[in-house]
Amino acid sequence: MYDSQLPALDSLADWFNRLPGIGQKTAQRLAYHTLTLSDKDANDFAAAIINAHEKIHQCSVCCNLTQDDICKVCASAKRDRSIICVVQQPKDVIALERTHEYQGLYHVLNGTLSPLGGVGPDDISIKQLMDRLKDGDVKEIIMATSATVDGEATAIYISGLIKPLGIKVSRLAYGLPVGGDLDFADEVTILKSLNGRNEI
Amino acid sequence: MYDSQLPALDSLADWFNRLPGIGQKTAQRLAYHTLTLSDKDANDFAAAIINAHEKIHQCSVCCNLTQDDICKVCASAKRDRSIICVVQQPKDVIALERTHEYQGLYHVLNGTLSPLGGVGPDDISIKQLMDRLKDGDVKEIIMATSATVDGEATAIYISGLIKPLGIKVSRLAYGLPVGGDLDFADEVTILKSLNGRNEI
Repeated sequence: MYDSQLPALDSLADWFNRLPGIGQKTAQRLAYHTLTLSDKDANDFAAAIINAHEKIHQCSVCCNLTQDDICKVCASAKRDRSIICVVQQPKDVIALERTHEYQGLYHVLNGTLSPLGGVGPDDISIKQLMDRLKDGDVKEIIMATSATVDGEATAIYISGLIKPLGIKVSRLAYGLPVGGDLDFADEVTILKSLNGRNEI
Repeated sequence: MYDSQLPALDSLADWFNRLPGIGQKTAQRLAYHTLTLSDKDANDFAAAIINAHEKIHQCSVCCNLTQDDICKVCASAKRDRSIICVVQQPKDVIALERTHEYQGLYHVLNGTLSPLGGVGPDDISIKQLMDRLKDGDVKEIIMATSATVDGEATAIYISGLIKPLGIKVSRLAYGLPVGGDLDFADEVTILKSLNGRNEI
Protein backbone atom coordinates (compact mmCIF):
# COMPACT_ATOMS: atom_id res chain seq x y z
CA MET A 1 0.00 0.00 0.00
CA TYR A 2 2.74 2.48 0.96
CA ASP A 3 6.34 2.23 -0.18
CA SER A 4 8.30 4.30 2.32
CA GLN A 5 10.03 1.15 3.67
CA LEU A 6 9.34 2.50 7.15
CA PRO A 7 6.79 0.20 8.82
CA ALA A 8 6.18 2.61 11.71
CA LEU A 9 5.40 5.44 9.27
CA ASP A 10 3.21 3.26 7.05
CA SER A 11 1.22 2.03 10.01
CA LEU A 12 0.60 5.62 11.13
CA ALA A 13 -0.38 6.63 7.58
CA ASP A 14 -2.78 3.69 7.61
CA TRP A 15 -4.51 5.09 10.69
CA PHE A 16 -4.90 8.51 9.10
CA ASN A 17 -6.20 6.80 5.95
CA ARG A 18 -9.06 5.29 7.95
CA LEU A 19 -10.37 8.74 8.88
CA PRO A 20 -13.21 10.03 6.69
CA GLY A 21 -12.11 12.02 3.64
CA ILE A 22 -8.41 11.23 4.08
CA GLY A 23 -6.98 9.40 1.05
CA GLN A 24 -3.68 7.54 0.84
CA LYS A 25 -1.64 10.51 -0.39
CA THR A 26 -3.00 12.83 2.29
CA ALA A 27 -2.57 10.16 4.96
CA GLN A 28 1.09 9.81 4.03
CA ARG A 29 1.58 13.58 4.11
CA LEU A 30 -0.03 13.77 7.56
CA ALA A 31 2.16 10.92 8.81
CA TYR A 32 5.30 12.67 7.55
CA HIS A 33 4.15 15.87 9.22
CA THR A 34 3.59 14.05 12.52
CA LEU A 35 7.27 13.06 12.47
CA THR A 36 8.27 16.71 12.44
CA LEU A 37 6.40 17.40 15.70
CA SER A 38 8.47 17.78 18.86
CA ASP A 39 8.53 14.80 21.25
CA LYS A 40 6.19 16.62 23.61
CA ASP A 41 3.73 17.50 20.85
CA ALA A 42 3.64 13.94 19.51
CA ASN A 43 2.91 12.63 23.00
CA ASP A 44 0.26 15.30 23.57
CA PHE A 45 -1.41 14.48 20.25
CA ALA A 46 -1.55 10.80 21.17
CA ALA A 47 -2.81 11.65 24.66
CA ALA A 48 -5.54 13.88 23.17
CA ILE A 49 -6.90 10.90 21.21
CA ILE A 50 -6.99 8.64 24.25
CA ASN A 51 -8.31 11.42 26.48
CA ALA A 52 -11.18 12.35 24.14
CA HIS A 53 -12.05 8.70 23.74
CA GLU A 54 -12.08 8.04 27.48
CA LYS A 55 -13.83 11.17 28.69
CA ILE A 56 -16.55 11.63 26.10
CA HIS A 57 -19.62 9.42 26.17
CA GLN A 58 -23.35 9.71 25.56
CA CYS A 59 -25.57 11.76 27.84
CA SER A 60 -27.74 9.30 29.79
CA VAL A 61 -30.83 11.37 28.96
CA CYS A 62 -30.58 12.74 25.41
CA CYS A 63 -27.75 10.57 23.93
CA ASN A 64 -25.79 13.69 22.92
CA LEU A 65 -22.04 13.57 23.59
CA THR A 66 -20.91 14.86 26.97
CA GLN A 67 -17.97 14.74 29.38
CA ASP A 68 -20.33 14.72 32.36
CA ASP A 69 -23.00 12.19 33.29
CA ILE A 70 -25.73 14.47 31.90
CA CYS A 71 -25.06 17.03 29.15
CA LYS A 72 -25.20 20.78 29.75
CA VAL A 73 -28.52 21.24 27.94
CA CYS A 74 -30.28 18.45 29.85
CA ALA A 75 -28.80 19.70 33.15
CA SER A 76 -29.75 23.35 32.58
CA ALA A 77 -32.64 24.71 34.66
CA LYS A 78 -33.31 27.38 32.04
CA ARG A 79 -34.41 25.08 29.23
CA ASP A 80 -38.03 24.45 28.34
CA ARG A 81 -38.67 20.80 29.24
CA SER A 82 -41.89 20.58 27.24
CA ILE A 83 -40.21 20.55 23.82
CA ILE A 84 -37.70 18.02 22.49
CA CYS A 85 -35.91 18.56 19.18
CA VAL A 86 -34.89 15.22 17.63
CA VAL A 87 -31.65 15.34 15.57
CA GLN A 88 -29.45 12.80 13.84
CA GLN A 89 -26.05 13.57 15.28
CA PRO A 90 -24.27 15.64 17.96
CA LYS A 91 -23.08 18.16 15.35
CA ASP A 92 -26.73 19.03 14.60
CA VAL A 93 -27.19 20.14 18.21
CA ILE A 94 -24.25 22.52 17.84
CA ALA A 95 -25.76 23.91 14.62
CA LEU A 96 -29.12 24.53 16.30
CA GLU A 97 -27.53 26.02 19.43
CA ARG A 98 -25.71 28.52 17.21
CA THR A 99 -29.06 30.18 16.46
CA HIS A 100 -29.37 31.11 20.19
CA GLU A 101 -33.13 30.90 19.68
CA TYR A 102 -34.24 27.37 20.55
CA GLN A 103 -34.72 26.93 24.30
CA GLY A 104 -36.07 23.37 24.47
CA LEU A 105 -34.25 20.07 24.96
CA TYR A 106 -32.67 17.76 22.39
CA HIS A 107 -32.61 14.09 21.59
CA VAL A 108 -29.78 12.71 19.48
CA LEU A 109 -30.63 9.60 17.47
CA ASN A 110 -27.01 8.92 16.53
CA GLY A 111 -28.03 7.74 13.07
CA THR A 112 -31.03 7.37 10.79
CA LEU A 113 -33.10 4.38 9.87
CA SER A 114 -31.61 2.87 6.74
CA PRO A 115 -33.07 -0.42 5.53
CA LEU A 116 -30.38 -0.68 2.82
CA GLY A 117 -27.59 0.06 5.30
CA GLY A 118 -28.99 -2.48 7.75
CA VAL A 119 -29.88 0.18 10.38
CA GLY A 120 -33.15 -0.67 12.13
CA PRO A 121 -35.14 1.06 14.92
CA ASP A 122 -33.10 -0.74 17.62
CA ASP A 123 -29.80 0.58 16.23
CA ILE A 124 -30.55 4.26 16.88
CA SER A 125 -31.73 5.75 20.17
CA ILE A 126 -35.49 5.65 19.54
CA LYS A 127 -36.19 3.62 22.69
CA GLN A 128 -34.46 6.24 24.85
CA LEU A 129 -36.66 8.91 23.24
CA MET A 130 -39.85 6.98 23.96
CA ASP A 131 -38.72 6.51 27.58
CA ARG A 132 -38.43 10.29 27.96
CA LEU A 133 -42.05 10.76 26.88
CA LYS A 134 -43.48 8.51 29.61
CA ASP A 135 -43.81 11.09 32.37
CA GLY A 136 -46.11 13.28 30.25
CA ASP A 137 -44.14 16.55 30.60
CA VAL A 138 -43.35 16.75 26.90
CA LYS A 139 -45.89 18.64 24.76
CA GLU A 140 -44.09 18.83 21.41
CA ILE A 141 -41.49 16.90 19.45
CA ILE A 142 -39.68 18.75 16.64
CA MET A 143 -38.30 16.31 14.08
CA ALA A 144 -35.06 17.94 12.86
CA THR A 145 -33.57 15.03 10.95
CA SER A 146 -31.98 15.84 7.57
CA ALA A 147 -34.05 16.52 4.47
CA THR A 148 -32.74 13.32 2.89
CA VAL A 149 -34.60 10.10 2.09
CA ASP A 150 -33.28 8.38 5.25
CA GLY A 151 -33.83 11.46 7.43
CA GLU A 152 -37.36 11.84 6.11
CA ALA A 153 -38.19 8.16 6.63
CA THR A 154 -36.86 8.32 10.19
CA ALA A 155 -38.99 11.40 10.94
CA ILE A 156 -42.10 9.68 9.61
CA TYR A 157 -41.38 6.44 11.49
CA ILE A 158 -40.83 8.21 14.82
CA SER A 159 -43.84 10.51 14.42
CA GLY A 160 -45.92 7.37 13.85
CA LEU A 161 -44.78 6.10 17.27
CA ILE A 162 -45.37 9.40 19.07
CA LYS A 163 -48.71 10.59 17.68
CA PRO A 164 -50.75 7.89 19.51
CA LEU A 165 -49.40 9.37 22.78
CA GLY A 166 -51.23 12.63 22.04
CA ILE A 167 -47.99 14.63 21.72
CA LYS A 168 -47.70 17.22 18.95
CA VAL A 169 -45.07 16.32 16.34
CA SER A 170 -43.67 18.99 14.00
CA ARG A 171 -41.04 19.01 11.26
CA LEU A 172 -38.48 21.72 10.36
CA ALA A 173 -39.75 23.86 7.45
CA TYR A 174 -38.46 23.15 3.96
CA GLY A 175 -37.73 26.09 1.69
CA LEU A 176 -35.13 28.27 0.08
CA PRO A 177 -31.96 28.76 2.12
CA VAL A 178 -31.62 32.39 3.24
CA GLY A 179 -29.37 34.24 0.78
CA GLY A 180 -30.02 31.52 -1.78
CA ASP A 181 -30.81 32.45 -5.38
CA LEU A 182 -34.02 31.00 -6.81
CA ASP A 183 -31.98 30.30 -9.89
CA PHE A 184 -29.72 27.86 -8.04
CA ALA A 185 -32.39 26.04 -6.04
CA ASP A 186 -33.44 22.57 -7.22
CA GLU A 187 -37.03 21.85 -8.28
CA VAL A 188 -37.99 19.91 -5.15
CA THR A 189 -36.81 22.70 -2.85
CA ILE A 190 -38.74 25.29 -4.90
CA LEU A 191 -41.85 23.12 -4.83
CA LYS A 192 -41.58 22.68 -1.05
CA SER A 193 -41.08 26.41 -0.54
CA LEU A 194 -44.11 27.14 -2.76
CA ASN A 195 -46.30 24.71 -0.81
CA GLY A 196 -45.10 26.08 2.51
CA ARG A 197 -45.56 29.74 1.53
CA ASN A 198 -46.59 32.21 4.22
CA GLU A 199 -48.71 35.34 3.99
CA ILE A 200 -46.79 38.59 4.39
CA MET B 1 -12.58 28.31 18.16
CA TYR B 2 -14.83 25.26 18.48
CA ASP B 3 -18.22 25.28 20.15
CA SER B 4 -18.92 21.67 20.99
CA GLN B 5 -18.68 22.42 24.76
CA LEU B 6 -16.53 19.28 25.04
CA PRO B 7 -12.98 20.37 25.96
CA ALA B 8 -11.54 16.90 25.28
CA LEU B 9 -13.05 16.88 21.78
CA ASP B 10 -12.01 20.46 21.03
CA SER B 11 -8.45 19.77 22.11
CA LEU B 12 -8.29 16.73 19.80
CA ALA B 13 -9.80 18.76 16.93
CA ASP B 14 -7.12 21.36 17.63
CA TRP B 15 -4.41 18.75 17.09
CA PHE B 16 -5.91 17.63 13.80
CA ASN B 17 -6.23 21.30 12.80
CA ARG B 18 -2.45 21.70 13.15
CA LEU B 19 -1.81 19.07 10.46
CA PRO B 20 -1.19 20.46 6.97
CA GLY B 21 -4.29 20.90 4.81
CA ILE B 22 -6.72 20.16 7.65
CA GLY B 23 -9.04 23.11 8.31
CA GLN B 24 -11.26 23.64 11.34
CA LYS B 25 -14.34 21.93 9.89
CA THR B 26 -12.38 18.87 8.78
CA ALA B 27 -10.51 18.75 12.09
CA GLN B 28 -13.80 18.66 13.95
CA ARG B 29 -15.14 15.91 11.67
CA LEU B 30 -11.99 13.84 12.22
CA ALA B 31 -12.24 14.34 15.99
CA TYR B 32 -15.87 13.18 15.98
CA HIS B 33 -14.88 10.17 13.90
CA THR B 34 -12.10 9.29 16.34
CA LEU B 35 -14.74 9.04 19.09
CA THR B 36 -16.51 6.32 17.12
CA LEU B 37 -13.40 4.09 17.08
CA SER B 38 -13.34 1.12 19.44
CA ASP B 39 -11.25 1.48 22.61
CA LYS B 40 -8.58 -0.75 21.12
CA ASP B 41 -8.43 1.19 17.87
CA ALA B 42 -8.18 4.55 19.66
CA ASN B 43 -5.30 3.23 21.74
CA ASP B 44 -3.61 1.74 18.67
CA PHE B 45 -3.96 5.01 16.77
CA ALA B 46 -2.36 6.91 19.67
CA ALA B 47 0.38 4.27 19.96
CA ALA B 48 1.08 4.52 16.20
CA ILE B 49 1.82 8.23 16.58
CA ILE B 50 4.21 7.70 19.48
CA ASN B 51 5.77 4.64 17.84
CA ALA B 52 6.45 6.39 14.52
CA HIS B 53 7.87 9.36 16.35
CA GLU B 54 10.17 7.25 18.51
CA LYS B 55 11.42 4.77 15.93
CA ILE B 56 11.95 6.96 12.88
CA HIS B 57 14.95 9.26 12.73
CA GLN B 58 17.46 10.51 10.18
CA CYS B 59 19.98 8.14 8.55
CA SER B 60 23.39 9.09 9.92
CA VAL B 61 24.82 9.08 6.39
CA CYS B 62 22.25 10.52 3.96
CA CYS B 63 19.76 12.22 6.36
CA ASN B 64 16.85 10.25 4.84
CA LEU B 65 14.31 8.86 7.32
CA THR B 66 15.02 5.36 8.62
CA GLN B 67 14.11 3.01 11.45
CA ASP B 68 17.67 1.62 11.52
CA ASP B 69 20.94 3.42 12.19
CA ILE B 70 21.71 3.58 8.47
CA CYS B 71 18.97 3.55 5.83
CA LYS B 72 18.45 0.62 3.43
CA VAL B 73 19.91 2.46 0.42
CA CYS B 74 23.08 3.53 2.25
CA ALA B 75 23.49 0.02 3.73
CA SER B 76 22.98 -1.80 0.41
CA ALA B 77 26.08 -3.35 -1.18
CA LYS B 78 24.44 -3.20 -4.62
CA ARG B 79 24.28 0.58 -4.92
CA ASP B 80 26.77 2.62 -6.94
CA ARG B 81 28.70 4.65 -4.37
CA SER B 82 30.14 7.05 -6.93
CA ILE B 83 26.89 8.95 -7.53
CA ILE B 84 24.82 10.89 -5.02
CA CYS B 85 21.42 12.29 -5.91
CA VAL B 86 20.58 15.31 -3.75
CA VAL B 87 16.86 15.76 -2.97
CA GLN B 88 14.80 18.07 -0.78
CA GLN B 89 12.74 15.63 1.26
CA PRO B 90 12.35 11.92 2.06
CA LYS B 91 9.30 11.65 -0.21
CA ASP B 92 11.48 12.56 -3.19
CA VAL B 93 13.62 9.46 -2.56
CA ILE B 94 10.50 7.31 -2.71
CA ALA B 95 9.49 8.97 -6.02
CA LEU B 96 12.93 8.32 -7.53
CA GLU B 97 13.08 4.74 -6.21
CA ARG B 98 9.76 4.05 -7.95
CA THR B 99 11.53 4.37 -11.31
CA HIS B 100 13.66 1.27 -10.43
CA GLU B 101 16.36 2.80 -12.60
CA TYR B 102 18.63 4.91 -10.42
CA GLN B 103 21.25 2.79 -8.65
CA GLY B 104 23.31 5.45 -6.86
CA LEU B 105 23.02 6.86 -3.36
CA TYR B 106 20.91 9.74 -2.08
CA HIS B 107 21.34 12.76 0.12
CA VAL B 108 18.28 14.36 1.69
CA LEU B 109 18.59 18.09 2.44
CA ASN B 110 15.38 18.19 4.49
CA GLY B 111 14.52 21.62 3.13
CA THR B 112 15.67 24.26 0.67
CA LEU B 113 17.52 27.50 1.15
CA SER B 114 14.95 30.23 1.57
CA PRO B 115 16.24 33.70 2.46
CA LEU B 116 12.68 34.98 2.90
CA GLY B 117 11.72 32.01 5.11
CA GLY B 118 14.87 32.44 7.20
CA VAL B 119 16.36 29.10 6.08
CA GLY B 120 20.14 29.37 5.64
CA PRO B 121 22.84 26.85 4.63
CA ASP B 122 23.25 25.67 8.25
CA ASP B 123 19.54 24.81 8.55
CA ILE B 124 19.55 22.08 5.88
CA SER B 125 21.96 19.14 5.71
CA ILE B 126 24.57 20.67 3.39
CA LYS B 127 27.43 20.11 5.85
CA GLN B 128 26.65 16.36 6.00
CA LEU B 129 26.75 16.26 2.18
CA MET B 130 30.16 17.96 2.07
CA ASP B 131 31.47 15.50 4.69
CA ARG B 132 30.48 12.60 2.43
CA LEU B 133 32.58 14.00 -0.43
CA LYS B 134 35.81 14.08 1.58
CA ASP B 135 36.99 10.52 0.89
CA GLY B 136 37.03 11.11 -2.90
CA ASP B 137 34.85 8.11 -3.88
CA VAL B 138 32.07 10.27 -5.29
CA LYS B 139 32.36 11.17 -8.98
CA GLU B 140 29.00 12.81 -9.64
CA ILE B 141 26.34 14.75 -7.76
CA ILE B 142 22.86 14.92 -9.31
CA MET B 143 20.94 17.95 -8.04
CA ALA B 144 17.31 16.78 -7.93
CA THR B 145 15.78 19.66 -5.96
CA SER B 146 12.41 20.96 -7.20
CA ALA B 147 12.09 23.18 -10.24
CA THR B 148 10.98 26.09 -8.03
CA VAL B 149 12.81 29.31 -7.22
CA ASP B 150 14.00 27.96 -3.85
CA GLY B 151 14.90 24.53 -5.27
CA GLU B 152 16.82 26.14 -8.10
CA ALA B 153 18.70 28.52 -5.80
CA THR B 154 19.64 25.62 -3.52
CA ALA B 155 20.94 23.60 -6.49
CA ILE B 156 23.07 26.52 -7.67
CA TYR B 157 24.41 27.24 -4.17
CA ILE B 158 25.42 23.62 -3.54
CA SER B 159 26.95 23.15 -6.98
CA GLY B 160 29.07 26.25 -6.24
CA LEU B 161 30.44 24.47 -3.17
CA ILE B 162 31.09 21.16 -4.94
CA LYS B 163 32.61 22.21 -8.27
CA PRO B 164 35.94 23.37 -6.71
CA LEU B 165 36.38 19.75 -5.48
CA GLY B 166 36.54 18.56 -9.10
CA ILE B 167 33.31 16.54 -8.80
CA LYS B 168 30.84 16.58 -11.70
CA VAL B 169 27.52 18.26 -10.80
CA SER B 170 24.42 17.65 -12.95
CA ARG B 171 20.79 18.80 -12.73
CA LEU B 172 17.61 16.86 -13.60
CA ALA B 173 16.38 17.74 -17.11
CA TYR B 174 13.58 20.21 -17.56
CA GLY B 175 10.98 19.57 -20.21
CA LEU B 176 7.47 18.46 -21.01
CA PRO B 177 6.02 15.88 -18.63
CA VAL B 178 5.46 12.55 -20.40
CA GLY B 179 1.84 12.37 -21.55
CA GLY B 180 1.58 16.14 -21.28
CA ASP B 181 -0.05 18.15 -24.03
CA LEU B 182 2.02 21.00 -25.49
CA ASP B 183 -1.17 23.01 -25.30
CA PHE B 184 -1.27 22.79 -21.51
CA ALA B 185 2.41 23.39 -20.82
CA ASP B 186 3.45 26.83 -19.55
CA GLU B 187 5.86 29.01 -21.56
CA VAL B 188 8.87 28.48 -19.30
CA THR B 189 8.53 24.68 -19.48
CA ILE B 190 8.24 24.83 -23.29
CA LEU B 191 11.27 27.12 -23.50
CA LYS B 192 13.31 24.78 -21.29
CA SER B 193 12.25 21.77 -23.33
CA LEU B 194 13.20 23.59 -26.56
CA ASN B 195 16.62 24.54 -25.21
CA GLY B 196 17.24 21.04 -23.92
CA ARG B 197 16.10 19.30 -27.17
CA ASN B 198 17.83 16.07 -28.18
CA GLU B 199 18.59 14.68 -31.64
CA ILE B 200 16.44 11.67 -32.61
